[in-house]
Amino acid sequence: MQLALLDAAAKAFTIFGFAAASIDVIASQIGATKGSVYYHYRSKSELFFAVHKRAMVINLRVQMPVLQDKSLSTIEKLFNMCHRHAMAMMDSLYYQRVTVQGVELHQSISTTPLEREALQEVVAMRDAYEELFEHVLEQGMSEGVFAALDPSIASKSILGSLNWTTVWYRPREGESAAAKLRIADQLALQAVCGIVAAKSRSRVPTAAARLPA
Amino acid sequence: MQLALLDAAAKAFTIFGFAAASIDVIASQIGATKGSVYYHYRSKSELFFAVHKRAMVINLRVQMPVLQDKSLSTIEKLFNMCHRHAMAMMDSLYYQRVTVQGVELHQSISTTPLEREALQEVVAMRDAYEELFEHVLEQGMSEGVFAALDPSIASKSILGSLNWTTVWYRPREGESAAAKLRIADQLALQAVCGIVAAKSRSRVPTAAARLPA
Repeated sequence: MQLALLDAAAKAFTIFGFAAASIDVIASQIGATKGSVYYHYRSKSELFFAVHKRAMVINLRVQMPVLQDKSLSTIEKLFNMCHRHAMAMMDSLYYQRVTVQGVELHQSISTTPLEREALQEVVAMRDAYEELFEHVLEQGMSEGVFAALDPSIASKSILGSLNWTTVWYRPREGESAAAKLRIADQLALQAVCGIVAAKSRSRVPTAAARLPA
Repeated sequence: MQLALLDAAAKAFTIFGFAAASIDVIASQIGATKGSVYYHYRSKSELFFAVHKRAMVINLRVQMPVLQDKSLSTIEKLFNMCHRHAMAMMDSLYYQRVTVQGVELHQSISTTPLEREALQEVVAMRDAYEELFEHVLEQGMSEGVFAALDPSIASKSILGSLNWTTVWYRPREGESAAAKLRIADQLALQAVCGIVAAKSRSRVPTAAARLPA
């Protein structure tokens, strides 16, 4: 029942918010009792952290084939990572939305030592995940295929454009799998083109064109 | 006191969340009484909508000089709009974070006819703002300076990369104004380069390189 419980919790946390989502409602979604939920998780916070952690596990897992494929060029690697991240955002939308709303909330709900430990664990997983993107960006910068920009801002720009799907994307009734692939494809394309083409910044008349406030 | 009240409310809503931020706490931040807050806003929801609305007004206002400058090329226009949007995100961080957490929350707190009306108003303002970006993207696509991609996804990709600053950007003690400008500059550069360079997609070996799941 644990996976079904996490699914129900992810959905309840995103729809009602952490404060309003009760263990009772979550349990009833899967025909379980409050007691059986508390058997697995001692508090709503613990359940929240479990959802957040599973979101991070999903994300890390979808990147594994890309990280292990040594035949990919750095551009291909970044494109595939972006594409897979975008797909993961849409495929496991409720989990990902919990993650997005999560970290700030965590800080206010992490009061016991166990909760603080759980917080540190998910924050470390998220940082490690972001570093995968920063690392491939740095690699491309040192190879000269990406613009030599700030790798941390570059990675936040890219992950932001992909993560934002959790805010606007909602599956439509009877939507084809192709619709999601098309979204992921365009997002990955814009992300990769952005960091590749910024090399020839002179073609984009930018800073000079900035207007006085 | 109304501006100070909105500032305090924006801060409280982002730090504590809507549910936990009380009118009492917000009032005490500006040395006001609960009663004086209720004189201006009949409910916490009404105050929340006022914060959200002000965020949208700030955003629309910073774009005015760009929208009115007929001398800009479409690329320059998009760059400036992105740059200004990124700066607005960082300059009025609390307001913008309320906006980001806002719309979903709105739907659950909009119960009275007045609240539903306020919700419709901020949603319409947000849609109009997003359309400014979509419009300039469509313009560039028809001129052939931007890749002929889906303008709605293109705009969401770009706004996502900029809006994400509300999640990760926190001003550092003694930070120079240049630090924010540098972030806005890089985000705008990646955004514009992404949609310009996606024209020559063939240079980015993308879809063909996608790996089996």
